[in-house]
Formats: sequence, C-alpha cells, structure tokens
Amino acid sequence: MNNYPKSSRNTVKRSPKRGHYDKETVYQILDTGYICHVGFTIDDQLYVIPHAYGREDNTIYLHGAVGNRMLNQLEKGIPICVTVTHTDGIVLARSAMHHSFNYRSAVLFGTAQLVPDEQKEQALFAITEQIIKGRWDEVRTPNEQELKVTKVLAMDIDEASAKIRTGPPKDDEADYELPVWAGVLPLQVTTGEAIPDPDLAHKLPLPESMGQLKK
Amino acid sequence: MNNYPKSSRNTVKRSPKRGHYDKETVYQILDTGYICHVGFTIDDQLYVIPHAYGREDNTIYLHGAVGNRMLNQLEKGIPICVTVTHTDGIVLARSAMHHSFNYRSAVLFGTAQLVPDEQKEQALFAITEQIIKGRWDEVRTPNEQELKVTKVLAMDIDEASAKIRTGPPKDDEADYELPVWAGVLPLQVTTGEAIPDPDLAHKLPLPESMGQLKK
Repeated sequence: MNNYPKSSRNTVKRSPKRGHYDKETVYQILDTGYICHVGFTIDDQLYVIPHAYGREDNTIYLHGAVGNRMLNQLEKGIPICVTVTHTDGIVLARSAMHHSFNYRSAVLFGTAQLVPDEQKEQALFAITEQIIKGRWDEVRTPNEQELKVTKVLAMDIDEASAKIRTGPPKDDEADYELPVWAGVLPLQVTTGEAIPDPDLAHKLPLPESMGQLKK
Repeated sequence: MNNYPKSSRNTVKRSPKRGHYDKETVYQILDTGYICHVGFTIDDQLYVIPHAYGREDNTIYLHGAVGNRMLNQLEKGIPICVTVTHTDGIVLARSAMHHSFNYRSAVLFGTAQLVPDEQKEQALFAITEQIIKGRWDEVRTPNEQELKVTKVLAMDIDEASAKIRTGPPKDDEADYELPVWAGVLPLQVTTGEAIPDPDLAHKLPLPESMGQLKK
C-alpha cells in the first residue's frame, strides 16, 4: 500500500489541496530532516521535544539513555505524534495577512515499541545514517556496554500526512496593483566549514561521509 | 522576574547542565525563529503542528482562520506546549553513540486565550515582524473584513526552559586515540536569491525589510 489511510486524525483540514497521503512524499520529507518534534503526555501534561531520529521503511527509530523520561513514557504504548518540518521560504505578499511560508511538513501518528536487544544495532545504524550517510563505517560502532545503557524505540507509522506549500504569494485581486514588492525569499539549511575537534590526536582529512550530506 | 520558575514540568532532566531558565535566553531562541511546533490534544489524540508565531514580551501569538481546528481547540484554555528549535551543527564523534547535534531549543508551557478585537492588529503586527522586521510598514495592513475572519490567540508563557548544546564532541577517553576525524559541521539557515512574484505589476526594487533579516 503506497498511501496512508485518511482519517479525521491525519486529514489536512486547512488548505486541503496542500495535503499529501502517499508514503513516498512523507518519506522524502523525513529523509531530508535531522530533527523531529515528538509530542507525548505524562500525567495529562503535554510535551513537545526535539529529538534525533532514523527512518527505516515505515518505521521511525528514537534512542536515548535507558533512564530517558520521554522514551520511558513512549514505551508504554501511548499514542504519539512525530512531526518533521522544513521551512523552504518566506512568502512576502502585498498585504500583511497573506504573508506565509513555503514549507514541507510530515505529521506521523503511531505508538512506539521497545526494540529488542538483537535489533538495537540495526536501529542505531539507521539513526546514525539519518544524521550523515556513510558515517557508521567510519567510526567505532557501539560496544556491549553502550547497547546495554541505550534504549531504542520503534514507531511504526500508522497514519501520516504531508503538507506542502510552494510558489509565489496569493494576494487579493485588488492588491496586485499595489506598488509593493512581493515574492519568495528562499530559506535553506547550509553547512559551514567543518570545525575539527581541538582534541584530534591525528592529522586527518575530512571523512568521506561529509560528501554525502543531504541538501 | 527574569527567570521562569522551575517545576517538574520544565526542568531539563537529560544533561541538566544544558538547561537554562532565564527569560533572556528563551526569548533569544524565540526571536531567531520563524516556526514553532504546537502540541495539543483533541479527544485524547495528540497533535504536533508547525505554525508561525510572534513574540511580544512574555506572550506568544498564534493566528489563523476563524475555523482553524487547532486554534479553536487551543482557545478552550487547554494546556499546550510550544517548542522552537534551532539545529546549529552536526557533532561528529569518534564513536557512533556519541554523535549528536549542537542546538538551541525553547520549550514553553501555558494556556492560550482569545485576543480581543481591539488588540488583534497589534498581535498581527508582532507575527508579521517575527517573519521579517520592518515589513508591516511596507504592505497593506489588515482591513476590517480580514480582521473579522482571523482568529488570534495569545499564550502567556507560564513556564519555559531552554536547552543548548555547543562545542566539540565528547568521546570516551579511550577513543581519542582512534584515527577517526571528529568535530562539528555547522548548520545554518541561509537565504537564497529573492524570487519576485511573476505577477508583480510594477518594476520594484527589493524592499528595505530584506536587509533586516535575522541571521
């Protein structure tokens, strides 16, 4: 199945034309991101916390220390919502009210489960590769002790939607004659010059994985 | 009072040294952002939705159409959580498990209230100026009809915390001898070349507000 089922939960209500329900679009948004925002409740109090993640097929992995409060709460199988957003541009309209952003967001619904010990390493691989592809092969991989003190959760994506805005501003018809500049100012995440750890023990070239950075 | 009260809700549990509770730090993170993630529940279902915002003193404004489902829910005075995150760099360690991000995030707790009609324009000004400072004076400001169909909510920040990571990776002592490049790859949001609306009726220079863009 290449589309997520539509329900009252994941159907885009505002600007429904911007809504997408196919897995390909959702996965693309996830795969070009680094950080998701995880929503969950503890004792009726709601939290929205930024967190690294990894995607493998229809599963999102989250990891942290075994004592991590968020992971311990998610592990109970409570409904969670995970959102990844890219802000692609500022949309400057002729009128204040039509200012907007170009963006791509993916909102995911599901419940998380503990990843069993024998699958932990594969999940941590997915998370590391999400950050920077090819890095896993360059570094010291997790040892037994690290795996022991690390909790990994897997959330299968039950429902999801993507919402995308592109293109120029949409102003009121009468405003198009106004002598006001309108258009889009593109925003993008760019990488600066790599800063070597001052404690590097060896003179080393930049790693190959840096050529694999997502755009 | 320059600090938010610390409670079980806003106290940073993981890496507590990265936690900050002073308003100045929280405001700085808010003021350099464009998009927040709003967490809320409807009928026990949790949502995390990206949304534009504006800050004025200790208040966050959110706006949308009067029929906006999220705003209608927030307006009931339910507890909400609003989070703004900046991802400042990829932290490349010698070991897979010590990979991390440099980041600044602000997590805000409070309840939202409807902004009365006579204060709506001031709130919309704050939201527009959050997007691009000085823009309000360049454009057609909201007319009576637009104000009528726009809902604006104000959330006073009751509690908040910021969490900030900076600097190089922290590896296990034994790993510092490994011949693995380690360091930080800075990430920043940069603006591309402005794209004029193809329907611009006049030949116009770029607006002055574009010189005011946040770094």
